[in-house]
Amino acid sequence: MTYCLGIRLNEGLVFAADSRTNAGVDNISKFRKLFVFENPGERIICVLTAGNLAITQAVISQLEEGLDGGTEDDTLYKVDSLSAAAKMVGDALRNVRARDEAYLKSEDADATSTFIIGGQIAGRRMRLFQVYSAGNYIEATEDTPYMQIGESKYGKPILERVVTPQMDLLQAAKCALVSIDSTIRSNVAVAPPIDMLIVRADDCKVGVEHRIMVDDSYYTNISRLWGEGLKNLFESLPDPHWFDDVC
Amino acid sequence: MTYCLGIRLNEGLVFAADSRTNAGVDNISKFRKLFVFENPGERIICVLTAGNLAITQAVISQLEEGLDGGTEDDTLYKVDSLSAAAKMVGDALRNVRARDEAYLKSEDADATSTFIIGGQIAGRRMRLFQVYSAGNYIEATEDTPYMQIGESKYGKPILERVVTPQMDLLQAAKCALVSIDSTIRSNVAVAPPIDMLIVRADDCKVGVEHRIMVDDSYYTNISRLWGEGLKNLFESLPDPHWFDDVC
Repeated sequence: MTYCLGIRLNEGLVFAADSRTNAGVDNISKFRKLFVFENPGERIICVLTAGNLAITQAVISQLEEGLDGGTEDDTLYKVDSLSAAAKMVGDALRNVRARDEAYLKSEDADATSTFIIGGQIAGRRMRLFQVYSAGNYIEATEDTPYMQIGESKYGKPILERVVTPQMDLLQAAKCALVSIDSTIRSNVAVAPPIDMLIVRADDCKVGVEHRIMVDDSYYTNISRLWGEGLKNLFESLPDPHWFDDVC
Repeated sequence: MTYCLGIRLNEGLVFAADSRTNAGVDNISKFRKLFVFENPGERIICVLTAGNLAITQAVISQLEEGLDGGTEDDTLYKVDSLSAAAKMVGDALRNVRARDEAYLKSEDADATSTFIIGGQIAGRRMRLFQVYSAGNYIEATEDTPYMQIGESKYGKPILERVVTPQMDLLQAAKCALVSIDSTIRSNVAVAPPIDMLIVRADDCKVGVEHRIMVDDSYYTNISRLWGEGLKNLFESLPDPHWFDDVC
């Protein structure tokens, strides 16, 4: 499993990804799922991956080195718009699936993979997309300024409650971490290290790139405070009146 | 979709269920998913249902009137233990699937259904089970004193954080309501009215049975306080230090 998310704010972009992969519970590994394609000042594109690891690695490889059947210029370092970049992720995924899927099916292995791609190219606007397993894609908007892939449900409530495009980068990064922490608590197939990337609007370069290890003091502190706070909040809620006659 | 949960405490049992059913988003209805089989003082058994409505209704019908192929005594009013009751739910489900599944498959319709069953028969201990779609079942334990069916992920974190067998019935009922409220916020296929049933240990009868409507003042108050409290808690968390050099 995996949990990755991207948030598009007026101030910039926040990306976060866990790094656990598993082929069954007896085969757990650590693989980075956050990939940066940067030419500082000219472009920053971040890709997050979920799904079959062989497939997502083959997709990233094409995005770095050129699409299969394309030219060496068909990379995220040369693409001229973010929408073309999202389409390129979809095309790379379709290439890999066309090559591998029949073989994976013969082993009852899952070939599905999903991606988040976001960033900015100088002179153009910041954008954030989710690429589905079929290679089609949708874009984040004012109404829904974030995208999630992988194990998305446990970490969604906090995003729904607090994320708006007007939120500042610092708060959004904290929110992404709480969202991932909630997911880690409920699904053992999602685990640190957590890779985070923050990009300021119009900088077209990495703002902060940070890897949070399992014993990171800030992370463990946030996790503890959130857990204790939830319990305290729950205890502060009024009791139901429809109990009065029996309790 | 559906969300139902059951909690087994030392003090008793708490059950809660939403009541939305849908066959596509253009066909939404309201159906009760919480069923009580009671002979006050002698037995209380509660069954919660999720999945294909025609299947779950046919299962409930057998539990009330007698298993297909069995006798009139094969009902939850006559069964002599809770584990036999869980097995009876599984048997009823297997009967219905054997009859209907081929026809459902020919229409690409889903035949899966899951159940929670819990209660107590006089002189025996309180028990809580989850019956899977295959008709097999598991029992709640000290380690995991609750069971969920349907859309379980959004509402699981609060259960994981606060529910213990030592919790009192009042707090557990409140927790069940918060868990359902979190689910309702994130999945439109889960909605009020919310049916709640509380059973005190060794009473072998309904303690409180309460239907919470969408405009119930306690429910709307809890929902608002929880939402505001989460936002306040989030804002109270310290900011990440790894931002200091850029923000």
